[in-house]
Amino acid sequence: MNYRLTLQYDGTDFHGWQMQRVTGERSVQGELARALCLIDGRDDVQMHGAGRTDAGVHALAQVANVRIEREIAPDKLRAAMNGNIGRDVRVTKVEIVPDDFHARFSARGKTYRYSIFNAPYLSPFWARYALHEARAIDVDRMQKAAKLFLGEHDWTAFSSAQADVATRVRTITMLEVTERYSVRGQGSLINITASANGFLRYMVRSIAGTLLAVGRGEIEPQTVELAIRNGARELAGATAAAHGLTLLKVHYD
Amino acid sequence: MNYRLTLQYDGTDFHGWQMQRVTGERSVQGELARALCLIDGRDDVQMHGAGRTDAGVHALAQVANVRIEREIAPDKLRAAMNGNIGRDVRVTKVEIVPDDFHARFSARGKTYRYSIFNAPYLSPFWARYALHEARAIDVDRMQKAAKLFLGEHDWTAFSSAQADVATRVRTITMLEVTERYSVRGQGSLINITASANGFLRYMVRSIAGTLLAVGRGEIEPQTVELAIRNGARELAGATAAAHGLTLLKVHYD
Repeated sequence: MNYRLTLQYDGTDFHGWQMQRVTGERSVQGELARALCLIDGRDDVQMHGAGRTDAGVHALAQVANVRIEREIAPDKLRAAMNGNIGRDVRVTKVEIVPDDFHARFSARGKTYRYSIFNAPYLSPFWARYALHEARAIDVDRMQKAAKLFLGEHDWTAFSSAQADVATRVRTITMLEVTERYSVRGQGSLINITASANGFLRYMVRSIAGTLLAVGRGEIEPQTVELAIRNGARELAGATAAAHGLTLLKVHYD
Repeated sequence: MNYRLTLQYDGTDFHGWQMQRVTGERSVQGELARALCLIDGRDDVQMHGAGRTDAGVHALAQVANVRIEREIAPDKLRAAMNGNIGRDVRVTKVEIVPDDFHARFSARGKTYRYSIFNAPYLSPFWARYALHEARAIDVDRMQKAAKLFLGEHDWTAFSSAQADVATRVRTITMLEVTERYSVRGQGSLINITASANGFLRYMVRSIAGTLLAVGRGEIEPQTVELAIRNGARELAGATAAAHGLTLLKVHYD
């Protein structure tokens, strides 16, 4: 049977999604695989995640699939897994899906959010989930610059130089910057929400860092336009810290 | 000068508000007092908090006041304090107030919130801030029972037996039960929000535990009415765990 898992995790204490077979560091995939081996009585399981989130990155609804020989009722499998993994990762849903479903290859796109807490202090309630920015930010300027990122482009300027991919062309279908007062944080929370048919490594964090630099008045929107058009990495802003990033949703047909 | 401090803290790693002079355990008051001694070059400071929150209880806007000989600009004092305390507590505002302002005695009331995460799993994002309840809850029933708590009553049945107070009479001016889907938690979040001219020790947690028992169908609303009227502790529900409780606001004239 092919099982689709929906997952939530606080990435703070994980070395990212991907299993670290060499170093043995704690990973979300490794934690889940270990639990599945216990439940299914196996030495190894092949689990595919939709997005290989980096160390420190969180997820509200990551998707993975795994093939298990015996049939287990979805709710029982969810409960059994949650009983054998750390409290910082939860299986929120289990579904039996057709054999050809593959969490990564079947995905049509993803939505990520980058959060910035903008106040003189960093709220303890956002310290693990948002980047702290004490300086004044012009959100209107960020919103205008965000429009420049829409559409199909080669994202070389906004991704890791080490990324080993056939093409760096991706289509950003949504990029929104919103600001709201966080009652919980007692300060302003700026969210950058991005959807694309796929993201390169560090792409959202690089876009977030660039938009933040635009908001602080350090980078001009025209420079952003040049960076996108010419793939000039030196014109883009710095890659924003991992802990501000959350995988919100994986899109399927 | 008399300074009024507004404070935010994640109570998880604190032994409550009150300084633990004997055991030396980490407390919010102790943490702040230590920083103030460093800043003001003193051996001891007298700091008054509006509410002595218990171990594990959080605060969005706790209020304290402290007298310091020399005049320090409020924003500078805030920054200096935040530089000398743990990241899980933040001074969000500092104001110079009249000499007769006392955080506790000047307070006219307080608002607390008790949060319950109602889903088969506990979201990692709510694990520190909400009680987990996997069973079905009848929120409508809780809302109806909440009305019974309004008004002036002797709250003996809903407070710590050890509380050393002149009177257990308090007036609850607001008690609301709301339910919303938490995008962050990917599940249902039930909030019990309570305002009163004052709360006894364990009072909000005892009311929350009773309302939760009503929601699970274990206690009848009539029993709640009896518990309030007769001060019969054995008719009330269990005291709900500390980590679900947050001090939202302290009311002043």
